Amino acid sequence: MKRIAIDMDEVVADAIGRFADWYKRDYGIEFTAEQLKFRRFESLIDTAHESFIKDAVYHDDFFKGLDVIPGSKEVIGELYKKYEIFFTTAAMEFPNSLLPKLAWLGEHFPYISWTNIVFCGDKSIINADYLIDDNVKHFKRFIGQGILFTASHNHDVEWDVRVNNWQEISEMLL
Amino acid sequence: MKRIAIDMDEVVADAIGRFADWYKRDYGIEFTAEQLKFRRFESLIDTAHESFIKDAVYHDDFFKGLDVIPGSKEVIGELYKKYEIFFTTAAMEFPNSLLPKLAWLGEHFPYISWTNIVFCGDKSIINADYLIDDNVKHFKRFIGQGILFTASHNHDVEWDVRVNNWQEISEMLL
Repeated sequence: MKRIAIDMDEVVADAIGRFADWYKRDYGIEFTAEQLKFRRFESLIDTAHESFIKDAVYHDDFFKGLDVIPGSKEVIGELYKKYEIFFTTAAMEFPNSLLPKLAWLGEHFPYISWTNIVFCGDKSIINADYLIDDNVKHFKRFIGQGILFTASHNHDVEWDVRVNNWQEISEMLL
Repeated sequence: MKRIAIDMDEVVADAIGRFADWYKRDYGIEFTAEQLKFRRFESLIDTAHESFIKDAVYHDDFFKGLDVIPGSKEVIGELYKKYEIFFTTAAMEFPNSLLPKLAWLGEHFPYISWTNIVFCGDKSIINADYLIDDNVKHFKRFIGQGILFTASHNHDVEWDVRVNNWQEISEMLL
């Protein structure tokens, strides 16, 4: 059985949505879905608020209750029948994310055992056939095939295997 | 540069010592170093206290401030000059261990970056040349060479590559 490693933020969990919600809450400024989809979030916010992103990601509540990226639940449910599924997230950078991420996976993907959840940093440590991730840096030394999941910050990044949404993953792997 | 993955409990962190300390604290019974070294802890305790181990490992303080296994600091410091070092621990089973384990590694192995710390479950997800671990179950599907680190619970386990202490790891890998 082949194995798929799946990143969390911007692949199954909508961290950008949380940034947008909190920015609106704090500064009363709202971005369009188009802006959030095609522009890096740091390029959208006022330069006077440059500490906003860092303050947000280190806040204890940031990773709690993030929205699920559309299509991920359905497609991963199908992939699970044909592949070994691991969630592999570079959570170590944000110790405040560890418990919320574990709880979030338990809530939205309860059939994925704790044995198949990996909190790491450098993903070259992952032994899998595929890695679905929004950050190409993790593919450089990855043992398998990196699949770049389109996110607002990677539109201009070059990578030979890219998917724009979970429907495209379904078409590629199912 | 070859890569070594190193388990935590019973390899670099003395969880058995914590069990022994807490058992003495709770029941006034002390075990000898010889008993702790050669007998499974669960075989030492009174059958009336069978919930002791489970209660202990799920206690918020269990993984805090564990003693360092003798020789590990010195040898890992030397290995670090010749190998990529990752700590890989099946921490997901105990969510209460996540933050204490991260803090413990930061205290005792500050030169190991967060990028090289992995909290996982099934260690077949680890891509490394060597895995030093006290549990052979992690070697079955491991991509590299499993090195069994002797612990009280594995004296009777068969595995072709075994080390009894960090000095023997030094002799094998340095």
